[in-house]
Amino acid sequence: MATVNDNYLKLKAGYLFPEIARRVNAFAQANPDAKIIRLGIGDVTEPLPAACRTAMIQAVEEMGDRNTFRGYGPEQGYAWLREKIAAQDFQARGAEIDASEIFISDGSKCDTGNILEIFGHNNTIAVTDPVYPVYVDTNVMAGNTGVANEQGEFAGLVYLPISADNNFTAEIPSQKVDLIYLCFPNNPTGATATKEYLKAWVDYAKDHGSIIFFDAAYEAYITDPALPHSIYEIAGARECAIEFRSFSKNAGFTGTRCALTVVPKTLTAKAADGSDVELWKLWNRRQSTKFNGVSYIVQRGAEAVYSPEGQTQIKELVSFYLDNARIIREKLSAAKLAVYGGVNAPYVWVKTPNSLSSWEFFDKLLQTVNVVGTPGSGFGAAGEGYFRISAFNSRENVEEAMQRITNHFI
Amino acid sequence: MATVNDNYLKLKAGYLFPEIARRVNAFAQANPDAKIIRLGIGDVTEPLPAACRTAMIQAVEEMGDRNTFRGYGPEQGYAWLREKIAAQDFQARGAEIDASEIFISDGSKCDTGNILEIFGHNNTIAVTDPVYPVYVDTNVMAGNTGVANEQGEFAGLVYLPISADNNFTAEIPSQKVDLIYLCFPNNPTGATATKEYLKAWVDYAKDHGSIIFFDAAYEAYITDPALPHSIYEIAGARECAIEFRSFSKNAGFTGTRCALTVVPKTLTAKAADGSDVELWKLWNRRQSTKFNGVSYIVQRGAEAVYSPEGQTQIKELVSFYLDNARIIREKLSAAKLAVYGGVNAPYVWVKTPNSLSSWEFFDKLLQTVNVVGTPGSGFGAAGEGYFRISAFNSRENVEEAMQRITNHFI
Repeated sequence: MATVNDNYLKLKAGYLFPEIARRVNAFAQANPDAKIIRLGIGDVTEPLPAACRTAMIQAVEEMGDRNTFRGYGPEQGYAWLREKIAAQDFQARGAEIDASEIFISDGSKCDTGNILEIFGHNNTIAVTDPVYPVYVDTNVMAGNTGVANEQGEFAGLVYLPISADNNFTAEIPSQKVDLIYLCFPNNPTGATATKEYLKAWVDYAKDHGSIIFFDAAYEAYITDPALPHSIYEIAGARECAIEFRSFSKNAGFTGTRCALTVVPKTLTAKAADGSDVELWKLWNRRQSTKFNGVSYIVQRGAEAVYSPEGQTQIKELVSFYLDNARIIREKLSAAKLAVYGGVNAPYVWVKTPNSLSSWEFFDKLLQTVNVVGTPGSGFGAAGEGYFRISAFNSRENVEEAMQRITNHFI
Repeated sequence: MATVNDNYLKLKAGYLFPEIARRVNAFAQANPDAKIIRLGIGDVTEPLPAACRTAMIQAVEEMGDRNTFRGYGPEQGYAWLREKIAAQDFQARGAEIDASEIFISDGSKCDTGNILEIFGHNNTIAVTDPVYPVYVDTNVMAGNTGVANEQGEFAGLVYLPISADNNFTAEIPSQKVDLIYLCFPNNPTGATATKEYLKAWVDYAKDHGSIIFFDAAYEAYITDPALPHSIYEIAGARECAIEFRSFSKNAGFTGTRCALTVVPKTLTAKAADGSDVELWKLWNRRQSTKFNGVSYIVQRGAEAVYSPEGQTQIKELVSFYLDNARIIREKLSAAKLAVYGGVNAPYVWVKTPNSLSSWEFFDKLLQTVNVVGTPGSGFGAAGEGYFRISAFNSRENVEEAMQRITNHFI
């Protein structure tokens, strides 16, 4: 008899975003005339930059000529893309990352889940609370946790609470943890990390032989020049950190699919016999064996992000969403709500008024003003009483949503 | 201290195709004037069908208008693609597969590896020998095997030998196995399976509660109308089989990346408490949590395969490679080599002459006539003394390679 991976049965029934979709669909069916504005899921809405489109059309045309046709590409990604990323995203900021340490993939969601495959099951794993649910769920699926308690906290994970009390930046734990997920600018809270703060984590990780999973999917939203974009801007990070990046939120690639993971060759972890094993070699073997690279056409689109026109266009795109975030922040602040984030990040994190629970506030916003956000409790127990509003929408929809909330609701 | 997945350390140093690339590169550097013809890796060479290119260019253009822009798509793939696949690839052949049972992905290599995540570690797993190396390596990485012996056979796996003696179709095992990998038309031997043969496997699997992983990546190469293209043409397969398909070899998508996996909703396996768990739900959860769907642009390209023009164009493409396979078969047969496959498959499986080992024959072909093939022993111990020649190349290169082999070598 074939058996299943029983760890899947520990997962809670509904992933956050499908549950939101279910409630929104039910409301829309019952109220077919309601003009619903969606500021829930962090999905971009504006056109793909022209530089990317031009490059992709040329790539499709190359596929039509056997002299320029491309079959299997390198599983790690094409050198011309990896080299531009290394030079412009890392070396230009003083982060010593070589092109060979960059692995192109079809998404950070995939990579942050798949990275667990190269690690043992006996690691102690830390996540912030609230946190991007994929970090937790993929650990549950991999068998790295026990079962969940009533608050949805899984046994075996170390939860590091983040709230207004600690400026949404987790305290360095007193206990030893082996794998640590950090995300800055943060999803869902919009918090950022200073160099000093990341330095404390890097020092901790080096002292304890820990590995930091640094999710920088929103780095393009950093406008403060003092803030680091990459953990490799911190001395010592090459010995303790893996970084995840994506073209989803800077270049609007959520439907086009391209991301990257940086695994420095100086990174090691322990084998059962106590020897040091290079993580680059394991990840390279994982990707070579279980992945066949990203579409040539899409990689050419990603490459165009690094052209002068591409750089101008993605800066405009990011500015556009940051202006949305500013409008959301200002309007909700003026309405006397406590708001966080949204300055160097596309997410605004709101304290629910009148002690409403996250889902109560969700239902009230949906039913009263037909605006969809994301309940903070969906990101973890410590997110209860908070609410995430995403800046990813048209200006018109953002302004309309804020007007409805401030005029009619609060 | 973070620890690694020690199972990776059981893997042999070189994956087959990188080792071939290493030897070819060394030869090319030492012999810069040699005109090397590559019939090794199974990678397509001819242009992408015009219907696919037209659809992808239109999709890129849609991405430039916020009214037709696409962000995150369904993790399972767009309904318009899944419905066409269900209708034309399955229902039209009498295989009762619903669109909701089809999961679009970026590659069969990924899917055949990732599928193991939803199964327990206590399953007994059977592979043929020789076999596509990814099936074995992904089981090693997942911890489903012990270490390898001198022949490269991993403890804990059940190897089912295939050779000319059994017409390259494995005998139904006398022992109980829980997960079984079958690939027809076969990589590497080019063998095919009759309905009667697959029926015997389906009956075995249903009797034993086993799951068959059916890799149909080369089904488009079947020309014999009596042969099944899908395992779901066999009664009972919906209760015991998962099928993998790809656009790589029928539509030339090796560099464009699109594939699909079929998980019928009638498929179950056992939880630790003995209850039956629907595998569709587990795979859907896996894909929703660890994958973000295939690029919209690429899915539109795949959809075009199902248009009348697309169907005509992929038939021409497959015919072209099948003619290559015929030429290879005829020329090598005329040169008194024992050849198999290459009729309903793009691979010709050759017995090495003069009792040469697979790698001896590889080196001799490379050095004497500058033709690259794939050593049979790279696919498993029972592949020793065989050699795979791929039909994926231009007509000119195939004819030139055959002429060199027959004139100068044999």
